[in-house]
Amino acid sequence: MSTTESSVGIVSAQQALFDVPLDLACGKTLTSYQLIFETYGELNAAKSNAILICHALSGHHHAAGRYQPDDKSAGWWDSMIGPGKPIDTRRFFVVALNNLGGCHGSTGPSSINPATRQPWGSAFPVVTVPDWVTAQARLADRLGIDRWAAIIGGSLGGMQALQWSIDYPDRVANAIVIASAPKLSAQNIAFNDVARQAILTDPDFHGGDFYQQDAIPRRGLRLARMLGHITYLSDDGMGEKFGRMLRSGEYKFGYDVEFEIESYLRYQGDKFSDYFDANTYLLMTKALDYFDPAKDHGGDLVAALKKATANFLVASFTSDWRFSPLRSRELVQGLIAADKRVAYGEIESAHGHDAFLMTDQPYVDLMRAYLDRVAKEVAA
Amino acid sequence: MSTTESSVGIVSAQQALFDVPLDLACGKTLTSYQLIFETYGELNAAKSNAILICHALSGHHHAAGRYQPDDKSAGWWDSMIGPGKPIDTRRFFVVALNNLGGCHGSTGPSSINPATRQPWGSAFPVVTVPDWVTAQARLADRLGIDRWAAIIGGSLGGMQALQWSIDYPDRVANAIVIASAPKLSAQNIAFNDVARQAILTDPDFHGGDFYQQDAIPRRGLRLARMLGHITYLSDDGMGEKFGRMLRSGEYKFGYDVEFEIESYLRYQGDKFSDYFDANTYLLMTKALDYFDPAKDHGGDLVAALKKATANFLVASFTSDWRFSPLRSRELVQGLIAADKRVAYGEIESAHGHDAFLMTDQPYVDLMRAYLDRVAKEVAA
Repeated sequence: MSTTESSVGIVSAQQALFDVPLDLACGKTLTSYQLIFETYGELNAAKSNAILICHALSGHHHAAGRYQPDDKSAGWWDSMIGPGKPIDTRRFFVVALNNLGGCHGSTGPSSINPATRQPWGSAFPVVTVPDWVTAQARLADRLGIDRWAAIIGGSLGGMQALQWSIDYPDRVANAIVIASAPKLSAQNIAFNDVARQAILTDPDFHGGDFYQQDAIPRRGLRLARMLGHITYLSDDGMGEKFGRMLRSGEYKFGYDVEFEIESYLRYQGDKFSDYFDANTYLLMTKALDYFDPAKDHGGDLVAALKKATANFLVASFTSDWRFSPLRSRELVQGLIAADKRVAYGEIESAHGHDAFLMTDQPYVDLMRAYLDRVAKEVAA
Repeated sequence: MSTTESSVGIVSAQQALFDVPLDLACGKTLTSYQLIFETYGELNAAKSNAILICHALSGHHHAAGRYQPDDKSAGWWDSMIGPGKPIDTRRFFVVALNNLGGCHGSTGPSSINPATRQPWGSAFPVVTVPDWVTAQARLADRLGIDRWAAIIGGSLGGMQALQWSIDYPDRVANAIVIASAPKLSAQNIAFNDVARQAILTDPDFHGGDFYQQDAIPRRGLRLARMLGHITYLSDDGMGEKFGRMLRSGEYKFGYDVEFEIESYLRYQGDKFSDYFDANTYLLMTKALDYFDPAKDHGGDLVAALKKATANFLVASFTSDWRFSPLRSRELVQGLIAADKRVAYGEIESAHGHDAFLMTDQPYVDLMRAYLDRVAKEVAA
């Protein structure tokens, strides 16, 4: 690693407690909640160089750096965030949080419900992208950030960036929406529902109140993750990486792991079921399904986007079939029709939906070029 | 329905018992087995007008007609088989069977194992496409059919037609391979493995021996079918049919059925889990995964196809992403390189993989035109 392309180094998480009740889209109210977050870089005197990173389904606040020097892996977007990297921490003050409903330290279904002193479980309210954006705006207030230089997210994270631009137009200078969509398709919802049904019908789910039962719905989580993984990779990419390779070279005529792709998926599923919370998985998929800013405008996306004043960068990946380029183009067309400034990059990549987490050079170059411009706006 | 486009009418199934042991690819032997089948039309004196219909994953022998006049639905391919239909029963003698390992009357995991007088369950051997073809050839012997005028199948059924052309080149005049592939891709195998894992990890599966436990792994079967259904439909087709329609018009902020697509999938899953056998589902997906005629020829498909003497019709559907047109073209290119006669139709359809069961006009026209030629060969 060169000196200009390096890590943010050792980081630590911070907690922010909010005592002002938060009214949610579902009609319920959270009387108090906490958010866990990390920051990288320094907020400038004008407080104009802040960037918010919004995470996707299984993401969290640990986006860059390491907690300990010997941590096996760095934060989930360490490839993009750091000194000399596209989200350059020498220029920007970067904030990454775990969303409400998460399972990495922010208040969620596995947290203790102050009213019952038991884990929230099934009583935790369904949260939506607009709810998250409201909670994030309060975190911005707490940090003294009136206006973000940029809000950036991939997939479900991109939806949050878009929602910010609509709900708080004055507080977002740039919205970077990667591998996302203005709403899910029927197929997207269908995949989410199969994943949810896997969890909901797992006998260890106990209607969401498994914490007190000394149970974990691992089978359901594992299936949800295996299925998810298939949709995050491209058919070609999976073919190149695994093809029809057999672990032992010959057919076994049984149901133990046999093809390399089976081994990979089962491993990913097992690992995920060890650390992720089943109720959070359900909540995150529902937030995806419900996201549809056009809904409050009679289905008119252009009308929904009218209020936005941000500059937009929209990016998609050619082999992404979970959130295909068509979905991003739908958003771009809406933004153009709403008379917004938008740059669009459709990036050739074999990495499918996962490409937003990868480092295909044209993607890194696009992000770097756009964020260079953002840095110049900040300095101006 | 016009007089030239009508049903085969009332049909009934027949059973054939085979006492000659069948050696399977897995190394095991079935000492005896029975096959259930139906026939439509009349075998001509020369016994040259027989057509074999091979079924796909969840199919069976009841391909056309009704058992009772008031049956709610006809056989699964009633749209294609009947007097005046493309597979014209005024000209052809049509045979449809349930494959070995099935759950509709042929010997399978839910049948009684003569050695134990208990259901076979987990002891039923894994069967392959070549095993099926061998069993089908014995049925042909029983029926006095030396050579099929055509063998026709979609998806897994197409693999059987292809395997016949390789294993019994003298016994197949025409092989019609629809929405199929010369082998599964990593993504195909991945989807099958998620479905299998859903069944295998269902506590009611009992390692495959659930029959004696008064249990049925409904949860697993239901998930397998829901997932399967997503992959049988096209993204666009699903979007047109269901879109983001809500059953009640508004978000419910819970996990009960909410979007129409959820309702559809759950219904399909529930229905399937009421009648399909979990062990059969596992066997069928393994037969799909293992199918790879090139494997015995060092991966050389052209070498595998050399022995075939049949004429081929290969057909694919533009919106089929489970077995995409690319897969059919791979087969067509192999057949051409092996110097075989092959016609190829890539049919514009929004019906995804399910299109092979539907009646898009260009598809029906293609089948009719090709089978007209087959009928003329028979008459000549």
